[in-house]
Amino acid sequence: MSISTPNHRPKARIRTRLLRIEQGQASARFDLVATEEPLEIRLLAAQTHGKTVAITMRTPGHDFELAAGFLLSEGLVRRREEIRRIAYCTDPSEPQQYNIVNVELNAATLPDLAPLERHFYTNSACGVCGKASLENLQRRYAPLDSSGRVSSQVITQLPKQLRAQQTLFAQTGGLHAAALFDRAGHLLALREDVGRHNALDKLLGWALLENRLPLSEQMVLVSGRASYELVQKALAAGVPVLCAISAPSSLAVELAQAFNLTLIGFLRDSFNVYSGAERLALDAS
Amino acid sequence: MSISTPNHRPKARIRTRLLRIEQGQASARFDLVATEEPLEIRLLAAQTHGKTVAITMRTPGHDFELAAGFLLSEGLVRRREEIRRIAYCTDPSEPQQYNIVNVELNAATLPDLAPLERHFYTNSACGVCGKASLENLQRRYAPLDSSGRVSSQVITQLPKQLRAQQTLFAQTGGLHAAALFDRAGHLLALREDVGRHNALDKLLGWALLENRLPLSEQMVLVSGRASYELVQKALAAGVPVLCAISAPSSLAVELAQAFNLTLIGFLRDSFNVYSGAERLALDAS
Repeated sequence: MSISTPNHRPKARIRTRLLRIEQGQASARFDLVATEEPLEIRLLAAQTHGKTVAITMRTPGHDFELAAGFLLSEGLVRRREEIRRIAYCTDPSEPQQYNIVNVELNAATLPDLAPLERHFYTNSACGVCGKASLENLQRRYAPLDSSGRVSSQVITQLPKQLRAQQTLFAQTGGLHAAALFDRAGHLLALREDVGRHNALDKLLGWALLENRLPLSEQMVLVSGRASYELVQKALAAGVPVLCAISAPSSLAVELAQAFNLTLIGFLRDSFNVYSGAERLALDAS
Repeated sequence: MSISTPNHRPKARIRTRLLRIEQGQASARFDLVATEEPLEIRLLAAQTHGKTVAITMRTPGHDFELAAGFLLSEGLVRRREEIRRIAYCTDPSEPQQYNIVNVELNAATLPDLAPLERHFYTNSACGVCGKASLENLQRRYAPLDSSGRVSSQVITQLPKQLRAQQTLFAQTGGLHAAALFDRAGHLLALREDVGRHNALDKLLGWALLENRLPLSEQMVLVSGRASYELVQKALAAGVPVLCAISAPSSLAVELAQAFNLTLIGFLRDSFNVYSGAERLALDAS
């Protein structure tokens, strides 16, 4: 088995510009966010056409191990000897070379991928294939309303309300939450789930079924980190402000900036604004 | 649009038996864990065959909203009026009725599912379809070695080592980690990623590529919660002990019990054992 190492890998962290809001005062900062990029895993064998077996949003680094571990978990590979070669895509016409890993097996043909078939459905955490699809997203989602403003004091009060209403979390310690607030900071709805994406889907699905879309006067708070996928869902529902208790990923920041969505992270008594700061009304205390 | 409500829904939380280990002393407890079950979302239209558009591991509850929100996020539905009916599967021969949601559109035919095609790959967070597949898993994974024992004192020392080595997390605040330890508590390898499943895939992929499988003498610690999927990956690599800093899900506990994997949750100075407690050597201090 041989492993080809590329000369230029995407970095695992990216420097990003942000506004730090503390007690109603904003200061410009730079900080590192974890990189989130799609990785496509392709399985190859000598006598058959290769096949894409997974697209996952990952942090670049140890990509060959990720591919090998995925194949192990899926039961497609059991021993190192079954792998002939792992390499990044080297097609010069492919702009995503380092986001595509080819795993070449020693076997003449691919293993039975049927057990994988039932996995070939998204939990929608996969997201679409990164930057390449920004254009598609721009066709898909309406521009966000940017007329309304929201007070920084109101924002710092949101986490307390979220915690108070997270009944399942309080009982099990094992759930994510997504909550919808109006501009005055009143909680309108909250949903919990073992999956972050599911919690937000439940919340936005509620809004859809209640005929409340687009949510242009509202804000969403999620209990964990802000990934690319959560920003995408906010855009689909027309929510102009997305707040996360924890860190955003690089692709979340990038997508939020492209659509001028207000993206807030590390929301506690203070918070970071990564995009769309013009919707913020600062209230110095 | 009408919504059919079933009489019996799976519960969002499940009571489970566990051992609480504090200062080397074990006491039997019951506690609630968040339910994790697969939900299949099927899209139907009057003049075409229905199609499964997603299988996601979710906490039961607000399932119709989850389905609606998923369709919204994917751009398949934009307004409530497009939905004719949402209902659980009512086929009496289907044992997973309440894990299948049918969304019937008003349109005569299904919308173009091509934009979804690229999503039709797993990030492997989907897992297989719950209980139905335990048998398949039992065929797929070798029984775990249960001869070795691990000291409870060693286990409580693991989180400190994990934190000390999480360099990317320290820089970005936005990453999950998975680490491999030997029975004496020495850290052998650590991987980080924005996705929990990816962090573990990277770790186990490393072990595969290093020809270290099965990991029958080792333990894995993950930084977040223990889901069904993470237990499945541990089984694929033959790791007999899986520890999580946070809570396990119901399906994680169930799968761990079925394979007698030692599943540890809420690991801090004390911890909970949900399965496979016989691998534990208690060291009362």
